[in-house]
Amino acid sequence: MPVGTNATVKAIGPEALEELGFPMILANTYHLFLRPGYEIIRAAGGLHGFTGWKGNFLTDSGGFQIFSLSALRKLGEEGVRFRSHIDGASKFISPEEAVEAQTAFNSDIQMQLDVCSPWGIGEAEARSASDLTTRWAARAKARWLVKRDEGYKGELFGIVQGNFSKSLRERSSAEIAALDLPGIAIGGLSVGEPFEVFSDFLSYTSALLPEDKPRYLMGIGTPDYILEAVENGIDLFDCVYPTRTARNGLIFTTGGPIAIKKAVFERDFGPLDPTCGCKVCRDHSRAYLRHLYKCEEILYAMLATYHNLYFLHDFVARIRESVRRGEFPTFKRGFLAEYRSGGEQSISTAP
Amino acid sequence: MPVGTNATVKAIGPEALEELGFPMILANTYHLFLRPGYEIIRAAGGLHGFTGWKGNFLTDSGGFQIFSLSALRKLGEEGVRFRSHIDGASKFISPEEAVEAQTAFNSDIQMQLDVCSPWGIGEAEARSASDLTTRWAARAKARWLVKRDEGYKGELFGIVQGNFSKSLRERSSAEIAALDLPGIAIGGLSVGEPFEVFSDFLSYTSALLPEDKPRYLMGIGTPDYILEAVENGIDLFDCVYPTRTARNGLIFTTGGPIAIKKAVFERDFGPLDPTCGCKVCRDHSRAYLRHLYKCEEILYAMLATYHNLYFLHDFVARIRESVRRGEFPTFKRGFLAEYRSGGEQSISTAP
Repeated sequence: MPVGTNATVKAIGPEALEELGFPMILANTYHLFLRPGYEIIRAAGGLHGFTGWKGNFLTDSGGFQIFSLSALRKLGEEGVRFRSHIDGASKFISPEEAVEAQTAFNSDIQMQLDVCSPWGIGEAEARSASDLTTRWAARAKARWLVKRDEGYKGELFGIVQGNFSKSLRERSSAEIAALDLPGIAIGGLSVGEPFEVFSDFLSYTSALLPEDKPRYLMGIGTPDYILEAVENGIDLFDCVYPTRTARNGLIFTTGGPIAIKKAVFERDFGPLDPTCGCKVCRDHSRAYLRHLYKCEEILYAMLATYHNLYFLHDFVARIRESVRRGEFPTFKRGFLAEYRSGGEQSISTAP
Repeated sequence: MPVGTNATVKAIGPEALEELGFPMILANTYHLFLRPGYEIIRAAGGLHGFTGWKGNFLTDSGGFQIFSLSALRKLGEEGVRFRSHIDGASKFISPEEAVEAQTAFNSDIQMQLDVCSPWGIGEAEARSASDLTTRWAARAKARWLVKRDEGYKGELFGIVQGNFSKSLRERSSAEIAALDLPGIAIGGLSVGEPFEVFSDFLSYTSALLPEDKPRYLMGIGTPDYILEAVENGIDLFDCVYPTRTARNGLIFTTGGPIAIKKAVFERDFGPLDPTCGCKVCRDHSRAYLRHLYKCEEILYAMLATYHNLYFLHDFVARIRESVRRGEFPTFKRGFLAEYRSGGEQSISTAP
């Protein structure tokens, strides 16, 4: 899922996203809760009516952003008080209000309010965050059932936390699974830990989840993390990575990402990626994209975003095909070997 | 002609411009001369090859921008020395080099290097700028004929100057017309003078021009200036106005421009302009555009630019139709009455 924080994926419209073939995008409850506020989105006919996007919306609950963006947050059993990063206004959100907001958005998939804890904290703090997330999941479920009774059709996913403690991950997985929600997310990974730790906790946690529910790994990611996720049975992921890096000058190619600002591209009149079938690669050159980037032109962001999303969509389609054929391990090895090969047009692989 | 300063119309791609129906866009020689430089554009196959735009390009000569953007310019008979507004580098351009650059661009229409003088200067200074422009026109023509012999297919337009002196305008018109170039532009209007002065000098100058050549009024404009231009037999005009004002929050409607940031649009779920047939008006609301504007989202610039260009293209198509039917005066009166009507959704008309 491309990320559309403010009810827009940055630098690309709904029409192009549909053309690219994405069935679902993510929007951030935290941002939309603050601006324009969920009453306006409800009045507009939910996020679909507000934005014109005909595909599905998954909305996060705002928990992650409250902990990463807002100042002076105060966490309690009831919910969390925080200051808006926009105007400093004091706001409060509870698990129930997160459901109310996402129901007003008419989200196709909504997420429970959770407490995401960072890499490197102690066991007691990790346990407290994880246990509170479970209690909030139960409260979110109760309010979601009321909304379903009132006619809301969207799903609610619970979130497994537990930081980097296997016993906490085990307890959280069991408790969230017991709530029998339509889907389960793994939260609190890719929060600063080394790749090996990420990989270890992903496979450990994933193995604990019910086989018959969609699994969503939050905040992933880069091609290597996506491959790791698929290998561990993950069905959904989201990340700002393809669109944010596009705007910052990083272009995906099968031979690895390239930094478009480099002087070597000044007279490179070939496509961004010679193996890519997208319309940006058909109509435009590296030299033109570099020129637009250097001039800080909006069209640069538009074209780079389109290409990176096309690349990622195509990448996931190829993963899916390799899984169907039972050739995923071969695909993974081959893709990574080429993606990490570097070569004259490439820089080192990205975050 | 929409303006594509850096070889891109800001916030819109070539595909959408073609869809909107524009046959020609303008690019700025001054900017492209400095970045990426005309040798790169030549190597890319001219501006068409560099940008992927399949329509026509008109390029200005850089004169206007040298006088408005660069520091420490020094004007001489030979040409003009100036400092780049990007990196301060000292540069020199002559009438001949302006032709070389625009030939490297493979511009469909190129403009001679001219000296644009501002509103409010004395007769001597005005005469000096106007006479130098005429001498430069002859030099530009000589070099252009060489380029034509070498296979270049583009046209060269001369530029009438003369500031706000009718005798200078008369002399400049006669001398530029005598060069018998494929088209003639009127420069040095809309440079700070009151509308009545603009209108007076436009009609005075226009009446002096040959009937059988296309006439181009540079740097126009707003709907009222465009109507004035058409009334005086002008065939071509360009301006950053529709795209720049779009990015700045001003949306064209038949009832007059609206400032999208206004609180009154917070819950206005209707289209930008109820009478508009563009896809932005079909798919999106004022409330959504206002939200995107407040969030400084790139999609705002994309949608507002598309709508304003659609509006202006449609406006000119309606002018053309009214001229064909012999109903231009009626159309002009009706359009302006509605455009200036204001109403609850409007602010005062723009620059």
